[in-house]
Amino acid sequence: MTMTMPSPTGSGTSASATSAEEREALVEAVRDFADARLAPFANQRDADHEFPVETLREAGQLGLGAICVREDVGGAGLSRMDAIAIYEQLARGDVAVAAYISIHNMVVGMIDQHGTDEQRRRWLPSLTTMDDLASYCLTEPGAGSDAAAVATAAVRDGDDYVLTGTKQFISGAGTSAVYVVMARTGGDDPAKQGSRGMTAFIVPAGADGLSFGPEEHKMGWNAQPTRQVVLDGVRVPADHRLGEEGDGFGIAMRGLNGGRLGIAAASIGGAQWALERTVAYAKERATFGQPLATRQHVQFALADMETELQAARALLERAAAKLDAGAADAPVACAMAKRFATDAGFRVADEALQLHGGYGYLHEYGIERVVRDLRVHRILEGSNEMMRMIVGRHLLGER
Amino acid sequence: MTMTMPSPTGSGTSASATSAEEREALVEAVRDFADARLAPFANQRDADHEFPVETLREAGQLGLGAICVREDVGGAGLSRMDAIAIYEQLARGDVAVAAYISIHNMVVGMIDQHGTDEQRRRWLPSLTTMDDLASYCLTEPGAGSDAAAVATAAVRDGDDYVLTGTKQFISGAGTSAVYVVMARTGGDDPAKQGSRGMTAFIVPAGADGLSFGPEEHKMGWNAQPTRQVVLDGVRVPADHRLGEEGDGFGIAMRGLNGGRLGIAAASIGGAQWALERTVAYAKERATFGQPLATRQHVQFALADMETELQAARALLERAAAKLDAGAADAPVACAMAKRFATDAGFRVADEALQLHGGYGYLHEYGIERVVRDLRVHRILEGSNEMMRMIVGRHLLGER
Amino acid sequence: MTMTMPSPTGSGTSASATSAEEREALVEAVRDFADARLAPFANQRDADHEFPVETLREAGQLGLGAICVREDVGGAGLSRMDAIAIYEQLARGDVAVAAYISIHNMVVGMIDQHGTDEQRRRWLPSLTTMDDLASYCLTEPGAGSDAAAVATAAVRDGDDYVLTGTKQFISGAGTSAVYVVMARTGGDDPAKQGSRGMTAFIVPAGADGLSFGPEEHKMGWNAQPTRQVVLDGVRVPADHRLGEEGDGFGIAMRGLNGGRLGIAAASIGGAQWALERTVAYAKERATFGQPLATRQHVQFALADMETELQAARALLERAAAKLDAGAADAPVACAMAKRFATDAGFRVADEALQLHGGYGYLHEYGIERVVRDLRVHRILEGSNEMMRMIVGRHLLGER
Amino acid sequence: MTMTMPSPTGSGTSASATSAEEREALVEAVRDFADARLAPFANQRDADHEFPVETLREAGQLGLGAICVREDVGGAGLSRMDAIAIYEQLARGDVAVAAYISIHNMVVGMIDQHGTDEQRRRWLPSLTTMDDLASYCLTEPGAGSDAAAVATAAVRDGDDYVLTGTKQFISGAGTSAVYVVMARTGGDDPAKQGSRGMTAFIVPAGADGLSFGPEEHKMGWNAQPTRQVVLDGVRVPADHRLGEEGDGFGIAMRGLNGGRLGIAAASIGGAQWALERTVAYAKERATFGQPLATRQHVQFALADMETELQAARALLERAAAKLDAGAADAPVACAMAKRFATDAGFRVADEALQLHGGYGYLHEYGIERVVRDLRVHRILEGSNEMMRMIVGRHLLGER
Repeated sequence: MTMTMPSPTGSGTSASATSAEEREALVEAVRDFADARLAPFANQRDADHEFPVETLREAGQLGLGAICVREDVGGAGLSRMDAIAIYEQLARGDVAVAAYISIHNMVVGMIDQHGTDEQRRRWLPSLTTMDDLASYCLTEPGAGSDAAAVATAAVRDGDDYVLTGTKQFISGAGTSAVYVVMARTGGDDPAKQGSRGMTAFIVPAGADGLSFGPEEHKMGWNAQPTRQVVLDGVRVPADHRLGEEGDGFGIAMRGLNGGRLGIAAASIGGAQWALERTVAYAKERATFGQPLATRQHVQFALADMETELQAARALLERAAAKLDAGAADAPVACAMAKRFATDAGFRVADEALQLHGGYGYLHEYGIERVVRDLRVHRILEGSNEMMRMIVGRHLLGER
Repeated sequence: MTMTMPSPTGSGTSASATSAEEREALVEAVRDFADARLAPFANQRDADHEFPVETLREAGQLGLGAICVREDVGGAGLSRMDAIAIYEQLARGDVAVAAYISIHNMVVGMIDQHGTDEQRRRWLPSLTTMDDLASYCLTEPGAGSDAAAVATAAVRDGDDYVLTGTKQFISGAGTSAVYVVMARTGGDDPAKQGSRGMTAFIVPAGADGLSFGPEEHKMGWNAQPTRQVVLDGVRVPADHRLGEEGDGFGIAMRGLNGGRLGIAAASIGGAQWALERTVAYAKERATFGQPLATRQHVQFALADMETELQAARALLERAAAKLDAGAADAPVACAMAKRFATDAGFRVADEALQLHGGYGYLHEYGIERVVRDLRVHRILEGSNEMMRMIVGRHLLGER
Repeated sequence: MTMTMPSPTGSGTSASATSAEEREALVEAVRDFADARLAPFANQRDADHEFPVETLREAGQLGLGAICVREDVGGAGLSRMDAIAIYEQLARGDVAVAAYISIHNMVVGMIDQHGTDEQRRRWLPSLTTMDDLASYCLTEPGAGSDAAAVATAAVRDGDDYVLTGTKQFISGAGTSAVYVVMARTGGDDPAKQGSRGMTAFIVPAGADGLSFGPEEHKMGWNAQPTRQVVLDGVRVPADHRLGEEGDGFGIAMRGLNGGRLGIAAASIGGAQWALERTVAYAKERATFGQPLATRQHVQFALADMETELQAARALLERAAAKLDAGAADAPVACAMAKRFATDAGFRVADEALQLHGGYGYLHEYGIERVVRDLRVHRILEGSNEMMRMIVGRHLLGER
Repeated sequence: MTMTMPSPTGSGTSASATSAEEREALVEAVRDFADARLAPFANQRDADHEFPVETLREAGQLGLGAICVREDVGGAGLSRMDAIAIYEQLARGDVAVAAYISIHNMVVGMIDQHGTDEQRRRWLPSLTTMDDLASYCLTEPGAGSDAAAVATAAVRDGDDYVLTGTKQFISGAGTSAVYVVMARTGGDDPAKQGSRGMTAFIVPAGADGLSFGPEEHKMGWNAQPTRQVVLDGVRVPADHRLGEEGDGFGIAMRGLNGGRLGIAAASIGGAQWALERTVAYAKERATFGQPLATRQHVQFALADMETELQAARALLERAAAKLDAGAADAPVACAMAKRFATDAGFRVADEALQLHGGYGYLHEYGIERVVRDLRVHRILEGSNEMMRMIVGRHLLGER
């Protein structure tokens, strides 16, 4: 694979530091991609509920399918700090596409981190290029953000596991080639309930017994399909197990740390675009004989939007740095950044809509789409209530 | 017309007081209508962008097409206080339909209040039954909430006026039979600029030179069409003028007082429905082994939602009472109620979505539709920034 | 006693309706009192930590010591709706004094409502005139807003009860002549724990074993002393028991309904005064060559302050009307009004401080005093968290 | 001077980079100082309105009087990034003292940056040790945050300047040895109005015609005196002029960049202390039979407090890094950080008070003092409205 994205020339076994210049070049390359390939079609994709598989492959060619994955399997070998800069730029073009790329990367990163050499070589090359797409299958209809409540069962049967259960709100379902599924291997053993006794599996598309619910009709995120994944006695060989039995909860949680950074960055990117559009609008648009830009309320609102986004970005960078450094409190930092950035991003986009007046409510201006797309960021990858729980308990010394 | 709605047996020349029992019966009748005819189809109407003309006629049969209009022309002769209770119930069923009915009533009320006997007898009977629908044409592409910036011109030509200009964001455009259009009759006379020199006209559908822009693709309010109204030399006889030349601004503003109450009430109704759905959901839905309803955060969030809605309702009733009483500060009270209730309604609906988690983001639960529908209430009938301007200036003793 | 305050000429056995004119005259009389006797000295009282006992007696002469108490014992026989209008006016003059008067009225009302004829005739005449002052003794050091956690014990001994325990945050302690104390009479009986087994007692000043902690140094409310009340084997005759054994919790809670209305009204009054001062300041004060009043941010901020206060007032009036009408959900309405009005009042006063710039931070302008005084309203008479709990549980159909 | 604080061994001519270990040692040393010398006496200082001159000298001995000043005159030669870490620690001990130290440093830094060698050698040595204290004299009674509205006049008379005018809200006035005063030297020259024609002067205590208003009675910041500075024909030699005629506005503004970082850091420090106290309180305090720490509302509130403070700290560090790097947009970054951190700090402290219930309102717990101290940070060093103006105009490409 030819990497067209600037990347560090490191050994390829771990994320290496990117210089400020390299980071800037990287961001610029992604911005160009977003400007050329994402932004111009974002409204149409939203209206048509189009999952842009071809465009995702282009992104894959740029190395965006495996940003923090090691280079030996085609990953870009970049840091989390690089990744958030990338997701922000992607989301300036199309929030829903950026968010899907973040999810794909989360799955790919889980295989990279927890897979055996053989698993890595088998599954990753086509995922890093985004020739194949990946879905993350944790949430279930009855569980929401409660990861420990997974009911999908995986039963060992000779050299295979047989998986049965239903996964809810799965991005990419029906299109993806690879599904990483969290299932319970502990049976009724009381020592293996809750977060224990959960195991991760790689389930390929086309497996017998694997089917999908109808596409969900959502408020936004229309550029990615969301469907149930139904596993009705799906049989996978034991070598499709990621990590050991009982490792699943840890794998799922570690994957979510990165996923939360990605969603947070996508919130900032979408809101940043909305802010820039609003600044431009405020200069062009006149009411009562004066440009909006001359009104104090508008100036103050824009200032608050900018300030809140800068604070979100700064907090997010701290979390990314902690995750890159393997800090013990990185999960707490990721939770804070996810909570703050997704709330801030939504508020900023909502205010951008308000400052656009009636035009903000029209689809063609794109602002209302960003509001709809960002709305779900406050809910998924662990709801913001869940983030508060993580941070609160950490402060109080629990767990 | 057979009124199936309880109404005061007054003389029919002005709004008469409704007793608490009458009000309750009225509210119950409207609630039944909303439950049976609006709520079950609200999601479908939204998805299909369907303007439910037949259902509106049913509403008209109930007297909902002319709630505060005098009874001699088929109006229900009710007070503003009654009207807000009605709009709230309608919006519990379908926000967008309720809001359109409020707009129709605003136009019908303008003809009732400012029309000559002849105009009232000519135009109102078919409007009160909603056999004919009405549109309010004030906003222009370049003007937003700045009513005084109207550029549409009406030029006297013999016994006629010739109207030329473009109106933006017109609900019902293309379907309505009657358009009340604000136009400038002052020409270049410097004494007749801004709010002076504006005149109201009744323009019937089918007039030569009257055409409509394409349907706007909006974030919500999909159950009512929004289009530009283009007047290209539309000729109307002088007896289509509502009030005198120069009365237009006052007519438009007085109409908006009632319109603001209607939109505010529709916000409360939509949010109330979302709150009720969330209370039910919190009891049914369990996470981490316990119903949501047992969680303190959920209890507190629901309490804040209820409290905010009750405050909005109380403030709105004060404004309606002032408008009924003809209080001098009624416009300020209407502005406050509109600002507060539309912001509160949106926040409540947004929080309802959040408490529903991922399900709140799905169309079938209806919550996200209410969020989208209520979003525009903060912008139209005078943006909430405009409302702040009205209230602020009043406090400071200006105007 | 000669009532100088306009009052209904009813039979004196229950609150009777006050006409709008009567209410207006009442409000005006109280406003005059507040303007003349409270406002001019509020800053000094705060600085000197002066409890204005003489001024309270003047208020008593006006009938303000027993606003909703029946007239046979000197009460004013007014409704809750009248009372909130009165407290608002008092608080425009001095929040801390108004709040103390509300507390005194709460205690006096408890004796009026739950006392025997003999108790009413014995204790009330000197309390209604405020020649004697009263304190409400519910909270304990370990209990906060958890009324059921009272540990103070009352043990029956012949014809007496012996009370032992400590009460915290008691307004008027050390100065009051009468202390209504909640104590536990159930002993260890498991059926008489929590809210059961609590009983109310009238404890007169000077009782053996009754002493007081040092005056608390508080953020505000300096015009009323707050001290612990220590009961060390205080012996009171059985005829000092208010209601039956086990009635205490109900008596305390019913008293708090009115207390919450009073505190809420005092919040509105203090904030209203701060708003009026800010409107005046905005007109006088120029920055960057223009009066503050011309700045859009200032106009919008003032508009929001006014709107929030009007909403609080409207919600409070609904709650007062419900309490007057004996509605089953009056406690919930009182809880909502208390939560909303005390939060809104604080925010408005805080914004008033901000709009005053550095001058708002100076004692002489009075604004910062109002901020400090209002701060505690969010905590006492049941914290705002407790109010949310009441409302949330009601919505969810608990209790 | 013996520096007991770890400092870089650089050349002393400019801020040099501090390693992470050095920064940590530095922070620890300041934390020890704050724990030992500031925190234990903070309540008492507040109650007594005591300006702790001796304690400030101890701080001076640690190098805290001239944190970012070059070492040749006794400065610590540290960066802005170091400085904010220091102010945060100081404010954990006593907000008002930390804030005064920040102001002193601002003045000292202005002389260091804009003074001639001779001025630096003459004035700085006794200021860096805090044997002498300094006051910043910009604000005037009629001007507030409008720096360009300075009316104090400086008239050249031979080798002297004669200064006449009044400065308002001057911290340290009456105690300080050195006053840096902004005055207008442009006379009536129309080209030298507003921000032009302003000049900075060093005015020593004891100058003829220099006097002070009475101490202001403030809501907080009681550990530092605030008084008017009255200049009635104060004559200073021309060599007391800092920079050239007309440089004053630029000098004042550049000084404020650092001052804003200091105030922002002090807000974070005070709020951080309040948060830590609240976490401890939540673990100790039980209501309804359970520790506060187990309640979801408390956990969520603490989580939001922590998150907001972390965001503020991250944003502040970005601004400090920009100021250290001399970035063109550093003033905008400082304005954003000041606005965000002072608002967040106040909200966090206010919530800490609320979570403490009635105890939060008592002086002895210290929380209410922090609330009062932090309140003024939203107003001074440029009000938060001014900060919004700076950021808003920057976004819109003005100035």
